[in-house]
Amino acid sequence: MHILIFGAAGMVGRKLTERLAKDGRLGGREIRRATLHDVVEPQAPPSAPFEVRTVASDFAVAGEAEKLVAERPDVIFHLAAIVSGEAEMDFDKGYRINLDGTRYLFDAVRLIGDGYRPRIVFTSSIAVFGAPFPDPIPDDFHLTPLTSYGTQKAISELLLADYTRKGLFDGIGIRLPTICVRPGKPNKAASGFFSNIIREPLAGHEAVLPVSEDVRHTHASPRSAVGFLIHAATIDGDKVGPRRNLSMPGVAVTVGEQIEALRKVAGESVVRRIRREPDPFVAKIVAGWSRGFDAKRAEKLGFKAETSFDEIVRAHIDDELGGTWVH
Amino acid sequence: MHILIFGAAGMVGRKLTERLAKDGRLGGREIRRATLHDVVEPQAPPSAPFEVRTVASDFAVAGEAEKLVAERPDVIFHLAAIVSGEAEMDFDKGYRINLDGTRYLFDAVRLIGDGYRPRIVFTSSIAVFGAPFPDPIPDDFHLTPLTSYGTQKAISELLLADYTRKGLFDGIGIRLPTICVRPGKPNKAASGFFSNIIREPLAGHEAVLPVSEDVRHTHASPRSAVGFLIHAATIDGDKVGPRRNLSMPGVAVTVGEQIEALRKVAGESVVRRIRREPDPFVAKIVAGWSRGFDAKRAEKLGFKAETSFDEIVRAHIDDELGGTWVH
Repeated sequence: MHILIFGAAGMVGRKLTERLAKDGRLGGREIRRATLHDVVEPQAPPSAPFEVRTVASDFAVAGEAEKLVAERPDVIFHLAAIVSGEAEMDFDKGYRINLDGTRYLFDAVRLIGDGYRPRIVFTSSIAVFGAPFPDPIPDDFHLTPLTSYGTQKAISELLLADYTRKGLFDGIGIRLPTICVRPGKPNKAASGFFSNIIREPLAGHEAVLPVSEDVRHTHASPRSAVGFLIHAATIDGDKVGPRRNLSMPGVAVTVGEQIEALRKVAGESVVRRIRREPDPFVAKIVAGWSRGFDAKRAEKLGFKAETSFDEIVRAHIDDELGGTWVH
Repeated sequence: MHILIFGAAGMVGRKLTERLAKDGRLGGREIRRATLHDVVEPQAPPSAPFEVRTVASDFAVAGEAEKLVAERPDVIFHLAAIVSGEAEMDFDKGYRINLDGTRYLFDAVRLIGDGYRPRIVFTSSIAVFGAPFPDPIPDDFHLTPLTSYGTQKAISELLLADYTRKGLFDGIGIRLPTICVRPGKPNKAASGFFSNIIREPLAGHEAVLPVSEDVRHTHASPRSAVGFLIHAATIDGDKVGPRRNLSMPGVAVTVGEQIEALRKVAGESVVRRIRREPDPFVAKIVAGWSRGFDAKRAEKLGFKAETSFDEIVRAHIDDELGGTWVH
């Protein structure tokens, strides 16, 4: 089979590509080709047992998506997006990439016609929800995003459902919770501290905690995120039904519980590297975020996340640190 | 003040124009000009106490909306749409008019910048909801439309909320229930029979009922629809808050109860003009529609509909038939 990935150079895209290269198969079928696309040249995984082609271009320009879709890939992963902060600051760019780009892609598939009906897996986000919300948020709660990014994701979800309903392709949208522990360097994203307070202490560095320990949030590891994508690519569409967009499960914990899990897994000396430095600006942003989800539909459909934050800490140690850490 | 109406030649547009011409004012301010736009030349109301300009063009062509918005109207009513049956049959046309057209209009306002921030009243539809749903549907129920029309309306709602949040204009979206009794001739809307079975018998004609009598649906009269629009044009946006799209109240009745109200108001001889002729195409579309709403937010904000279907029948007899009917 032939797999096409938009947004292959991002963190989740790289992890997905590595997993596909390791498995060599998807849903019981041998992978023969993968096309990795992003606005910057994606890296081909070093030892893929299939042909890999990398393409760098702007997929939100008319005609670009057509070129890649013309090869009729069996599964298309659409992970490409301008992130929330940038989409909020650059209105035009956010709508161009996150809305127009998605529509170009969907229309490229539609216009092939001819019975071509690939599975398209689209990564949406919990940013489609906007405060105030119930805790937990049920599967049938309305989408009232409070960012342009969340709006663009919600619109893409609606398009995906309608195109799927019309038989133009076979789409599944998955709303990812916050991915934790994010590998790499600390960034200035308001949500960065959720990962920083785990990753940095394990690497021997100090981390700053800008909010109080009772802040509650939902997390899934990068490994789980890839698991969601693989499951979404192979699940029986008839079982999903016409509501094609699903909130993914995750581990809902307080920051205090995150720290407790770190202590349990890695010890007190690691936890001591977390420095409390309350930041009212960050605290205010985080107060507007969702806490927990009742992801019943996704769980029933077999999407699996970790069941404790201990597991998330261990997944990071195994996948990123070769099984050990700075004691 | 200057008022611009897109979709002014449609039924609701004409009723709105007549009401504005009668009132001469909107929200306590004198109306000095009205621009009536549609794809066909709208009729100017015969005795408007203000200047009326009529324009016929395709507003979903780049640059068209700009021309009208350049005059900086204070209030813009956006009622223009391809109806549900046609949008379902002609995918491209539906998306072009109902999505691209809306976006051209919203962007035309946005690109003026310069502090220009008109109230935009957008008519959405209960078609944004898709079965299965609770009955009644609460204000916070998710939008999972089962038609392309409903999808296009839901997307327009999301855009309206985001553009309003960003301060680009001051939008209010109102989800109209089915308008009943629609005057005039049947159009291509799949919902046409809800009005036909009242209007045609009262006019002495036979009407076809394509669904069973237990089909339940929510209705508001054209008079109420115009009332919703006027209220939406003048309501304090701060009271509405960031969730700018509202399900309007209406009268939830079965087709059987509609017929019973017709019998009560106009007598058995009129009711006998309804002929049962099941149509699976219509029945299937209607089965995906909502039945009742718990329109708490709209009611709390002062939007008012009829309280019984008898009132709706009487409103039609008063407003369209000069107080009498064919016995």
